[in-house]
Amino acid sequence: MSAQVNRRIVLAARPHGDPKESDFAVVEGPLPVPGRGQALLRNILVSLDPYNRIIMGNANSDQPAIGIGDPMFGFTIAVVEESDHPAFAVGDHVAGMSGWQDYAVSDGTDLRKIDPDAAPLSANLGVLGMTGLTAWVGLTKIIEPKPGGTLVVTAAAGAVGTAAAQIGKLRGLRVVGIAGGSGKTRHLLEDLGLDAAVDHRAPDFARRLAAAVPDGIDTVYENVGASMFEALLPHLNLKAQFAVGGVMSQITRTEAFEGPDRLPDLLSAVMYKDLTIRGFSVPDHFDSYPDLLAELAPALARGELRYAEHVVEGLENIPAAFPEMFQGRVMGKMIARIG
Amino acid sequence: MSAQVNRRIVLAARPHGDPKESDFAVVEGPLPVPGRGQALLRNILVSLDPYNRIIMGNANSDQPAIGIGDPMFGFTIAVVEESDHPAFAVGDHVAGMSGWQDYAVSDGTDLRKIDPDAAPLSANLGVLGMTGLTAWVGLTKIIEPKPGGTLVVTAAAGAVGTAAAQIGKLRGLRVVGIAGGSGKTRHLLEDLGLDAAVDHRAPDFARRLAAAVPDGIDTVYENVGASMFEALLPHLNLKAQFAVGGVMSQITRTEAFEGPDRLPDLLSAVMYKDLTIRGFSVPDHFDSYPDLLAELAPALARGELRYAEHVVEGLENIPAAFPEMFQGRVMGKMIARIG
Repeated sequence: MSAQVNRRIVLAARPHGDPKESDFAVVEGPLPVPGRGQALLRNILVSLDPYNRIIMGNANSDQPAIGIGDPMFGFTIAVVEESDHPAFAVGDHVAGMSGWQDYAVSDGTDLRKIDPDAAPLSANLGVLGMTGLTAWVGLTKIIEPKPGGTLVVTAAAGAVGTAAAQIGKLRGLRVVGIAGGSGKTRHLLEDLGLDAAVDHRAPDFARRLAAAVPDGIDTVYENVGASMFEALLPHLNLKAQFAVGGVMSQITRTEAFEGPDRLPDLLSAVMYKDLTIRGFSVPDHFDSYPDLLAELAPALARGELRYAEHVVEGLENIPAAFPEMFQGRVMGKMIARIG
Repeated sequence: MSAQVNRRIVLAARPHGDPKESDFAVVEGPLPVPGRGQALLRNILVSLDPYNRIIMGNANSDQPAIGIGDPMFGFTIAVVEESDHPAFAVGDHVAGMSGWQDYAVSDGTDLRKIDPDAAPLSANLGVLGMTGLTAWVGLTKIIEPKPGGTLVVTAAAGAVGTAAAQIGKLRGLRVVGIAGGSGKTRHLLEDLGLDAAVDHRAPDFARRLAAAVPDGIDTVYENVGASMFEALLPHLNLKAQFAVGGVMSQITRTEAFEGPDRLPDLLSAVMYKDLTIRGFSVPDHFDSYPDLLAELAPALARGELRYAEHVVEGLENIPAAFPEMFQGRVMGKMIARIG
């Protein structure tokens, strides 16, 4: 990487279904030049999220997609290289939305200064970042898990899933994670300390799930978006609550799901079991970020908040690595270290 | 009807799917004899509700069913004929749970004295009774419709549907009813004063629905339990809220619904549109009944709360009439006048 060149990853082709390496291109250009009141940022960490797939288009979402040739945007940790902004000094570490590129300019509206000594830098993209906020808002402002109750987290080995599971543990819940493969369930049990972990690929998944929730299910943090519902249904306690934080199984879907139609069963369960099912938009809750920090930063410092990361080395390796997230091959928060 | 004979309707056979006349039997027995602290009641009105189908069994519900030969229970309006209960005097009118029979005894725990001059007696089974409470709770304690917003009511010509629609109108909502058949939609517009009514049997239903909700849909009072969801989805505003008060289409279902599976689409919509979907159990909200009365009784007296009734004459005609509810042939609250 030359100091005079800015590499950026752009959308080369709109994916159908899972993203692939050739959907991206790395292009080089001159360093951006900050204007009045702006700062020049050198990105050092890039957050790789399901959200990035959504903005590529064809994602069963009504969120807007970027255009072919447009740069991929996303959350980043950067160092301020030049600054004409009063709040940000050269050498400051900042979290922002600088995208998949080496350098960016910002007018500061997307930036938040971070203390590199308070927590590992990458945690500011994970459990102390948007990933953590997605989990925290769901469990704090959308549903109301009661201490001692059973929280089930789907896609529990994913970035938001591990954060939700850890927040659940911090708050005294019995946390049961569902994930695909014994490597993930072992990780959830041994590294993250969940109360139980169930492999949804196991042939006796239903039996294992039943054994993992002897007192039924009180709350669900849902990241998958469908496939688990039928399995969870018999175990839902009256007034069970779902926070729908993600619909990972939907993002890359290209065909309608085969029948039977389970929607009527869901609505019956909603009625007969007094369920509450709620979605939410994280940007509506950005003002909760200080509350998240107040709860989670001390817990992280005390070692009570464990997390895993999947680190990609080098901006140039993102196009090959990002698709792995959709193949179930990533545990924890996926991050690229680029500088 | 001899004064010395009590006729009661019992379950003769468990229905599969829609109920039919032969699922019931009318049996005669002696008048029940009230014991200490009890009252003898002569039923004059019997409420006929989807709930009655559920207790017959095979109803896609985990609510308990009654046994073959057991008397059908249900809500009633009765006159006190004898009383050893301090709160109820001979001649009092009471609402209770005396079931499908001419006479009953009660220890008073299920009874509520009603003023026969304050409102038509039958309204105490409808908009001022459990039907009304089911609608009122959904629109008051489960979701929060804002004045001026658009409320869609499914099965809007049914008992709970008409009540929900009327409460919505009282509160300044734009109320759009969905019902099957032009007779029902005309009734909703002309007799009940809804802002729009859409016939879901019309071949151009989707177009008519779109025209009826030019500002989108903010809240839904759902009585059907599935089939309308796909049609409503494109019109749901961000943060739309569903109260699931009934799943009529499910009660008599005997087979799985054909695919495609719409459950994933529902969960995607929950996430991307920040939907809230909530069920509730009316018995949890019996303590709200005085609040309902305070709002609805004066409105009824002022003529601002319109309702329709479908009256069956005679206890002996209930077995033939009740199945009509499941054939879409009943508008408004179904009641049997038996004494």
